[in-house]
Amino acid sequence: MREILIIGGGKSVTYIIKYLSENAQKEQLSIMVADKDITYIQNATKTLPHIKYAQLDIFNQELLVKYINKASIIISMLPATLHIHVAKICLSLQKNLVTASYISDEMKILDHEVKKNELIFMNEVGLDPGIDHMSAMQVIDRIRNSGGKMLLFESFTGGLVAPQYDDNLWHYKFTWNPRNVVLAGQGGAAKFIQEGTYKYIPYHKLFRRTEFIEVNNYGKFEVYPNRDSLKYKSTYGLDDIKTLYRGTIRRVGFSKAWNMFVQLGMTDDSYSIENSFHMTYRQFVNLFLPYSHFDAVELKLRLYLKIDQDDIMWEKLEELDLFSDKKIALENATPAQILQKILQDKWTLQPEEKDMIVMYHKFGFELNGKKQQIDSSMVCIGENQVYTAMAKTVGLPVAIATLAILNKKYTTTGVQLPIKPLLYQPILKILEKHHITFTEKETTYSGYNPKQLLN
Amino acid sequence: MREILIIGGGKSVTYIIKYLSENAQKEQLSIMVADKDITYIQNATKTLPHIKYAQLDIFNQELLVKYINKASIIISMLPATLHIHVAKICLSLQKNLVTASYISDEMKILDHEVKKNELIFMNEVGLDPGIDHMSAMQVIDRIRNSGGKMLLFESFTGGLVAPQYDDNLWHYKFTWNPRNVVLAGQGGAAKFIQEGTYKYIPYHKLFRRTEFIEVNNYGKFEVYPNRDSLKYKSTYGLDDIKTLYRGTIRRVGFSKAWNMFVQLGMTDDSYSIENSFHMTYRQFVNLFLPYSHFDAVELKLRLYLKIDQDDIMWEKLEELDLFSDKKIALENATPAQILQKILQDKWTLQPEEKDMIVMYHKFGFELNGKKQQIDSSMVCIGENQVYTAMAKTVGLPVAIATLAILNKKYTTTGVQLPIKPLLYQPILKILEKHHITFTEKETTYSGYNPKQLLN
Repeated sequence: MREILIIGGGKSVTYIIKYLSENAQKEQLSIMVADKDITYIQNATKTLPHIKYAQLDIFNQELLVKYINKASIIISMLPATLHIHVAKICLSLQKNLVTASYISDEMKILDHEVKKNELIFMNEVGLDPGIDHMSAMQVIDRIRNSGGKMLLFESFTGGLVAPQYDDNLWHYKFTWNPRNVVLAGQGGAAKFIQEGTYKYIPYHKLFRRTEFIEVNNYGKFEVYPNRDSLKYKSTYGLDDIKTLYRGTIRRVGFSKAWNMFVQLGMTDDSYSIENSFHMTYRQFVNLFLPYSHFDAVELKLRLYLKIDQDDIMWEKLEELDLFSDKKIALENATPAQILQKILQDKWTLQPEEKDMIVMYHKFGFELNGKKQQIDSSMVCIGENQVYTAMAKTVGLPVAIATLAILNKKYTTTGVQLPIKPLLYQPILKILEKHHITFTEKETTYSGYNPKQLLN
Repeated sequence: MREILIIGGGKSVTYIIKYLSENAQKEQLSIMVADKDITYIQNATKTLPHIKYAQLDIFNQELLVKYINKASIIISMLPATLHIHVAKICLSLQKNLVTASYISDEMKILDHEVKKNELIFMNEVGLDPGIDHMSAMQVIDRIRNSGGKMLLFESFTGGLVAPQYDDNLWHYKFTWNPRNVVLAGQGGAAKFIQEGTYKYIPYHKLFRRTEFIEVNNYGKFEVYPNRDSLKYKSTYGLDDIKTLYRGTIRRVGFSKAWNMFVQLGMTDDSYSIENSFHMTYRQFVNLFLPYSHFDAVELKLRLYLKIDQDDIMWEKLEELDLFSDKKIALENATPAQILQKILQDKWTLQPEEKDMIVMYHKFGFELNGKKQQIDSSMVCIGENQVYTAMAKTVGLPVAIATLAILNKKYTTTGVQLPIKPLLYQPILKILEKHHITFTEKETTYSGYNPKQLLN
């Protein structure tokens, strides 16, 4: 009997538990889920066999050590900043660790010690980061193994509402952390490479520099660039690549409308508004508009953003009750916090509604003197509000990787992410059985002249 | 014989030295100017009597203590962050101190100790901050003393090129620190109050929310808001005021054109461009534009910013050689550093050219049940490149305040700024003799309905 300890019982953990529970008998597993507040995950997964639950505050060092010590391997699904706390105990107790989060600088520093102790600290093995790495590396490795040279790599992911429930003008609902959506793109210019040229986009232009993609059976989407597209340049072995671009997927029209909030200054999280509690949505909007002796907020906003009264952009704002006398009812809130509140009124997924994950890669390469392109896309629809597409795509690779490491199928030591075939091949194979599949489409490589225009 | 020690020999110090030198005999002064590099100020003022020069590195603690100990009062004209170093020694050696800089948090903390030692640390007694405080408080105190109630206070200052040398399309040349001009407005939303309503403007909209002012004999100017207009609300005793707005003065059309740089992302100082040394101005512009297979940088920029080829905005960019193959020749520079370089090619004041300072206040108030307004403006033109308007308006009040404190005409102790009549009255009187005069104009108070429009 091997015990797997899952620390953290948030919404992304359901599928990890489900997968491990299904494999418990065959693999001789007992699963322990521990969190400060265990109610949600216990209720959500209580019908599953082989699961134990424990109330655990990770700042209770003694108890945390006790739980880690009993386990054969640890999965940390805590908020990203807390992994390091668990990691250090894992190191001292000689336990392997799996997370779905980006490798932090603090985590990276442990690499040498982790290797010395012949341990595996596998990170970034969720969806994004996670499935993006694995599905991209599978194609990149295949291209390179056949003698191809990579010219272009673009990679996009989005968490959206399933088409059936896509019933607002923004074609968007919150399926994950709303705060991250409101703050997306802030903190510095977006950087990427297009056809050998570096490109920089300031935050206030980010949502106006979108590209379109087309996904079979799901129609058209748009993408806006992530802040740092160059992050994995070396990790993926793409140091000489001509185009490297990563982005976030939204339904067409979202970014142009979101840009209105950016232009107004409503996504700012750097200062608080004193009297926000009793302020109305309408008064909130007026904070960002010039003073006028009698002109209404509506007219001032239309002039400021240069939109007509019959523009769909205008209707998108009205749909949010932005000009209503609803109270904000948040004390000393930042503009971003207030905007989040306003959006959550309208964009919260209802109990019967389902989410959708879309991932899209473009690989441009030269093989035998010929330029070619492979587009690869994946769509995953949630089953319900417990077994969401997000929980599935984040949780399944975590669970599969954990078993692979536990069963010594994967033995490379150190602090790492899943870019080795020995790990991503079996994971992607099992994901396919769970209907997380990529569809490939081969085209001629067009680079940034996709319509083959002549001058 | 009393020795006045001036630490720092930058361009703003010429008028301090000139004024003190002129008063040296009558006031029994000897003036010591000390800086790490004394060459500039020694050359600039060498014909003046009663001045001694010393080479002094302020990080040579022993020497600094020696110089401060010999002096009767100290003027620090060092970069703002270095005053605290001098201030602490002044405190321990029981010397009064004068600076033209904003009171830093570190300086503020000394207040209690300074008072306990019956010392005066007078700050913000230059131009802006300085003359703005004094000239505003003089009118505000007058209004209040006659029983008036303040409704509106707006205050604007600008360092510009004198009209005679205003010969480029931007109507702007650098007369002070170019870096501050490039970074102006960054670091958070601008905040102010208009007719009782708080207003917030994000950086990327700052240069599109200008107001116009008209200065007798000098024509029309525009102002854009400073970051924090509310800073002196309590200091000036304006806690209940309906409108409080501070801003920077430029010639009309500057802000709209400057906004192009902001929109492109060229004023960003938060990241470096690796290969900037060999990059051309044209390639620099292209970093901020979408990739295109054949479209020229010019066309892409015009589309991006939505300007026609015969637009004056376009001519303003061309005037800067922005599309030329000139090399940047700066290693690993930030966009802001590169933009500064490009602008300095064109906007550097020539040896024969003169600068100009413009200051403009609006005071709205209610007196005997009647709403009234006083507009007050000051224009100062430099004599030459040594005795600039900037050096005059910064330096004279510093020098006058120093003498007032030395002669015990002003005895209020503590870390402070010049808002007391006992100090600002004599300073403003002497400034008048040096032709730094404010012209007042009385009008009916219109608040933010200046044309008295009806709905």
